[in-house]
Amino acid sequence: MAEPCKPSELTYQDAGVNIDAAESALDQAKDSIRKTFGPRVLADVGSFGGLFRADNLGDEPVLVATADGVGTKIRIASAIGRFDTVGRCLVQHCINDALVQGATPLFFLDYIGVGKLDSQMVAEAVSGVAVACADHGMALLGGETAEMPGVYPEGEFDLVGTLVGVVERAHVLDGTRVQAGDVLLGLPSDGLHTNGYSLARRIVEERMGIADWNLPFPGEEGLSCADVLLKNHLCYLEPLKPFLERPALHAMAHITGGGVIGNLPRILNGHGASVSRKSVPAQNVFTQLVEAGNVPRDEAWRVFNMGVGMILVLAAEAADGIAQELHSAGQSAFTMGTVTTEEGIHWLD
Amino acid sequence: MAEPCKPSELTYQDAGVNIDAAESALDQAKDSIRKTFGPRVLADVGSFGGLFRADNLGDEPVLVATADGVGTKIRIASAIGRFDTVGRCLVQHCINDALVQGATPLFFLDYIGVGKLDSQMVAEAVSGVAVACADHGMALLGGETAEMPGVYPEGEFDLVGTLVGVVERAHVLDGTRVQAGDVLLGLPSDGLHTNGYSLARRIVEERMGIADWNLPFPGEEGLSCADVLLKNHLCYLEPLKPFLERPALHAMAHITGGGVIGNLPRILNGHGASVSRKSVPAQNVFTQLVEAGNVPRDEAWRVFNMGVGMILVLAAEAADGIAQELHSAGQSAFTMGTVTTEEGIHWLD
Repeated sequence: MAEPCKPSELTYQDAGVNIDAAESALDQAKDSIRKTFGPRVLADVGSFGGLFRADNLGDEPVLVATADGVGTKIRIASAIGRFDTVGRCLVQHCINDALVQGATPLFFLDYIGVGKLDSQMVAEAVSGVAVACADHGMALLGGETAEMPGVYPEGEFDLVGTLVGVVERAHVLDGTRVQAGDVLLGLPSDGLHTNGYSLARRIVEERMGIADWNLPFPGEEGLSCADVLLKNHLCYLEPLKPFLERPALHAMAHITGGGVIGNLPRILNGHGASVSRKSVPAQNVFTQLVEAGNVPRDEAWRVFNMGVGMILVLAAEAADGIAQELHSAGQSAFTMGTVTTEEGIHWLD
Repeated sequence: MAEPCKPSELTYQDAGVNIDAAESALDQAKDSIRKTFGPRVLADVGSFGGLFRADNLGDEPVLVATADGVGTKIRIASAIGRFDTVGRCLVQHCINDALVQGATPLFFLDYIGVGKLDSQMVAEAVSGVAVACADHGMALLGGETAEMPGVYPEGEFDLVGTLVGVVERAHVLDGTRVQAGDVLLGLPSDGLHTNGYSLARRIVEERMGIADWNLPFPGEEGLSCADVLLKNHLCYLEPLKPFLERPALHAMAHITGGGVIGNLPRILNGHGASVSRKSVPAQNVFTQLVEAGNVPRDEAWRVFNMGVGMILVLAAEAADGIAQELHSAGQSAFTMGTVTTEEGIHWLD
């Protein structure tokens, strides 16, 4: 008698998951990951968890931890198949988030979620993360790549990072030193950094009518839309490191999602601020997007950084000196306004 | 003269992003997040980075960091709109990953990426993470919610976590003590934990022909498919904590993606193992999935945990004693095999 008919065999591969591709991606990125390891890293790539020696981090060390993604900037990367720059943006975004609390980076972990795993793409993204970590003296201690058919459409992916840094407790920037009369010193961004991309993409596609990210961006000599919109999120660690323990540095705000109005109040410890929008050097990318999208001015300042990547809150008497030191070191800066007793952001213009 | 006709105004909301919904979700989850804060947490919810005092963590403290997601288990949560249990699974998965290196948890950060932000859903997921963190004495130090239309289809989301734990350097479990003749002691899983879901979902939908996750799962009294497949990823921290500094505990493997064959070799330090699959108590969920999907046996053992959540590698002379201590504490365990000199996993049956 014949055996009853069995259904065909189902495997993980049939369900759209390719374990080998993830391993191959990790193999390709291993060398660039190992280059991030300093003497504090104790385990090799591929352990269940990364090991980081935490002895002698300071007298009263405080760990600062932050998690973030790069938002829908990643969709432009997916669209044109350039995966290294978003990794750098992610790393530099997280460094800035820790920096505004006074911290310098120790280690980083990344996560890539993807609809269909392309080992070349993942290797490029992870290597981008690793190279940026190495540039800023931070270990890429761990990571995970997950192939999740259905959660992500084919061709889409998300890139998430977590950074752990350290600051001496006496030098934590928590806003307690902020007082009325403090001066706001802005540092320029370089384009959108990692915020406002859902709106920016819609404006480029629908209002500028640009269907291909490789076409020129209006008003930018020789730069494609992808070039302009994939510009690196600037890292302010190196220019600001000399100032982190200065008593005159009262607080810092990293201008990300929510813009100046969403981020500056977070560090003012109950104070407000008078801010001149005209003091911020205009950048063509914002002028073009706001014009083409007819984005209301307040909305533009809530969605985009509008040209300011970081704001320092400085003791009034020290502000000019610090601005000059920054200029001498090649970092431009502009006075944006002052801290007020009254809560909320008051636009001067 | 009439002004030239301007295009209609575009806002972030038009581009599918709702900043207020993210803030509302965080507000709803704030209380449960604050409940995770111990005396080492220095900043409140909503800072750029979480602050964690790292003084006096030990003589030679080593930080153990691990990042992970919950895979496509999340699609079942999305499908039935139950968002708290995947948060707990994520936390407990990460705790186990740090535990196998000997570490106990300090703090956690979460990331939620979503196509369209539903503040109720995000609040439920974050609260699920927070409650699980509190249960295991870990601070939920930070997190991020990103609304990313297009990266995630509407209704889909991803949930990612990063854990930082600590272990005294002398007690790091790095496999160096593993030797031939060591005994493998398995601890039972409770269902799929967080791996193999792409295959499991396909089998349930296509081979069992079950179109609704609320329908009964074959062979499970009173449990729906969602109940069975959303069972919590077990956490082995509490049962194993008393053994972490025992010299007889040579190594541990957390059985996740890749199954026994993918995870056990990672900790054997160049040794191999002889493993009895029949020693692992069979669970109905695996029997049903393998049968309905006609999944080849080796493939099933590579995709699913097949009933073993954690494997301890123990000095032979201490294995029985430790198994009995575990049993006395209410933790079942089973001898699965032994460590061999020859590399690779050799199935005994």
